[in-house]
Amino acid sequence: MNTIDQANAIAVERMIEARPVLVGLGKALDVIPGMHADLLLHAGPPITWERASGPLKGAIIGALIFEGRATNAAEAEALITSGAVQLEPCHHHSAVGPMAGVTSPSMAVYIVENCTHGNRAFSNLNEGYGKVLRYGAYSEEVQAKLRWMHAVMAPVLAAAITATGGMDIRALLAEALHMGDEGHNRNKAASIIFTKNLAPHIAKAAPDGTTAAAIIQALGDNALCVLNPVMAACKAMADAAHGVEGSTLVTTMARNGTDFGIRVSGLSERWFTAAAQVPNGLYFPGFQAEDANRDIGDSTITETAGIGAFAMAAAPAIVTFVSGTPKDAINATLEMYEITVAEHKAFTIPQLDFRGTPVGIDLRAVVETGITPRVNTGIAHKEAGVGQIGAGLVRPPMGIFEEALVAFAERYGF
Amino acid sequence: MNTIDQANAIAVERMIEARPVLVGLGKALDVIPGMHADLLLHAGPPITWERASGPLKGAIIGALIFEGRATNAAEAEALITSGAVQLEPCHHHSAVGPMAGVTSPSMAVYIVENCTHGNRAFSNLNEGYGKVLRYGAYSEEVQAKLRWMHAVMAPVLAAAITATGGMDIRALLAEALHMGDEGHNRNKAASIIFTKNLAPHIAKAAPDGTTAAAIIQALGDNALCVLNPVMAACKAMADAAHGVEGSTLVTTMARNGTDFGIRVSGLSERWFTAAAQVPNGLYFPGFQAEDANRDIGDSTITETAGIGAFAMAAAPAIVTFVSGTPKDAINATLEMYEITVAEHKAFTIPQLDFRGTPVGIDLRAVVETGITPRVNTGIAHKEAGVGQIGAGLVRPPMGIFEEALVAFAERYGF
Repeated sequence: MNTIDQANAIAVERMIEARPVLVGLGKALDVIPGMHADLLLHAGPPITWERASGPLKGAIIGALIFEGRATNAAEAEALITSGAVQLEPCHHHSAVGPMAGVTSPSMAVYIVENCTHGNRAFSNLNEGYGKVLRYGAYSEEVQAKLRWMHAVMAPVLAAAITATGGMDIRALLAEALHMGDEGHNRNKAASIIFTKNLAPHIAKAAPDGTTAAAIIQALGDNALCVLNPVMAACKAMADAAHGVEGSTLVTTMARNGTDFGIRVSGLSERWFTAAAQVPNGLYFPGFQAEDANRDIGDSTITETAGIGAFAMAAAPAIVTFVSGTPKDAINATLEMYEITVAEHKAFTIPQLDFRGTPVGIDLRAVVETGITPRVNTGIAHKEAGVGQIGAGLVRPPMGIFEEALVAFAERYGF
Repeated sequence: MNTIDQANAIAVERMIEARPVLVGLGKALDVIPGMHADLLLHAGPPITWERASGPLKGAIIGALIFEGRATNAAEAEALITSGAVQLEPCHHHSAVGPMAGVTSPSMAVYIVENCTHGNRAFSNLNEGYGKVLRYGAYSEEVQAKLRWMHAVMAPVLAAAITATGGMDIRALLAEALHMGDEGHNRNKAASIIFTKNLAPHIAKAAPDGTTAAAIIQALGDNALCVLNPVMAACKAMADAAHGVEGSTLVTTMARNGTDFGIRVSGLSERWFTAAAQVPNGLYFPGFQAEDANRDIGDSTITETAGIGAFAMAAAPAIVTFVSGTPKDAINATLEMYEITVAEHKAFTIPQLDFRGTPVGIDLRAVVETGITPRVNTGIAHKEAGVGQIGAGLVRPPMGIFEEALVAFAERYGF
């Protein structure tokens, strides 16, 4: 084992041993490190308003309307372009958000704590389907939903989460992988386990039965309700592996709708970015590939932590949603063993005789094999305000791995 | 296609097209056809007190204590042996019950209606794990749980089920088979879908939040809570296929802890029975094969309707519970295609490229191939009052299929 292998073994061990527990729900301004009143967080690597895609712009506009800082798109744009409100990646603040990932100071965020190493991670609330902020929709319908979620749902959810005494998201995911989930695009089982775990506490914490029923129903009807705490859990696991001197492990993969970016354990906070691709997948009726935005969202943190497309063998039914056959799903996972340094101890795949999922992407292996990580993803319409138009499969551009490897060689003098 | 094939095609079409919907929860005395104040229903083919196994005797004693008819085992036994209280199979009353299956007049039962053909089926409430009546336990702990379930839970559950407007159990099972369930021993996904569907209505129907929480928790903590409505649904499907003139389709498989019995679509209400076997499986710590009772329960109605062991390929993770490997699970399903006449339209298996589950056991095929139906099952301790000691796999005795085929030949003059 050379020194890079040793560093990677340390990094991946930290990723695997991290035990992310959902411990609370708080206000972004109060709990996210470095959050302030004039800051919006977004998915992916850093980006300016000018280079932002339609769905990211839409979500920024929607968040500023939600905050009461703007009443329309022009006012929102002026706030950003004037510098009155700044944009920074979620990833710079221990946070992650699906799709546009826009998180504003007043928003409620899940608080996930890695009980093994002590670091925390955060993610916003999942709004469900249809016209939603994370896909860049910002109409009054979207705002009304967000207001209900924050005024009615969030306080009860916060009390319910506290009443659970902490929910072990790694254990929840391990169970869900035995129930046909892959933890990214298919979170059906995990979402209903999450709902089932919270429902008794919601019934007790809600001001009345009708409110309890509405909140439980909102969670239960949303097969992605757990995606955000799952992403925060994966962020907590990935962050635990970051900053290991000499490690080529990829600890961040994220897209802002324009660029795909990665970061590497041994290369501190530096991003390596290139143009994100348009996913291949299945489109909802009435939409097609030319409507699609480039790949967007922090949800690639799931693949970074060894689930999502890396665990597709566990989720054969997902092919009805993202295209392909059950055999393709098996092959997707098998291929990812080629570019990872370990098999996960907690996440196992019954279909592969309970083999651990491939975990810990090695930059060197990606470049040597020419195999880029697989990603399962939702597909956003390229214009603000339309929303999700499909789901599919995508890969990051190879160039960013090559660039990172060159930087690694320069940094460590290989 | 000969006339038997034609009759079987009609019968299996009826089984597949049956759409069982959970429409309510009622008192056995009020809703089960032919139920009366001095009648107890039990699992499997007809049996006397003298021939009954330990767990069945224990459940009978427990039910009579629950009804207030007896205060101890001796009083209960006297009621049965004197004829003051009679025993009849659940199956003679459109009902089914897991393990001992004892259903007494005051008990709450799920009401499932086959919306395609109009027949109804019934099953009692699932008590969860540990010391429970269905495994023959009847202590005060068991009684207290039963009293809570009937006094507190049942009225709320009844209101919640009514408020759903009817829950399509076939659709629920179809979804659960894509989530790693096989619908008999592994009902994790179906149970939490069931809980998730009912929880908002429970929150509204309960007298207060604490009661709502307790009921939701009781369902949510019980990964078999849906087994009883699932069994009633399978009974509704199997009954729809029963009574087709000239059909060799097996429409009942059931065990009373002493005998395994089957009935055949074209042979009206006649049972064919022989000694039930002891399952092969995995035992809980501290127990072994010599502690096991013979195979018991009506839950083989799931295999009769094309799920359970017949759908094991969909549930690779079940092998941690019933023994074997994921490959064995695939092979179990593949073998069952040898003795069935159709592939289910509603129940599909992602792992087999969404092939329909094998459905409609043909008596002729069982005898010709020498392949008996596979059954997944819980294992009861042979003494009353101990409870579940494991789970495993079992097959019915071949002799009952041979006997039934002889009877069929006699009846139809082949």
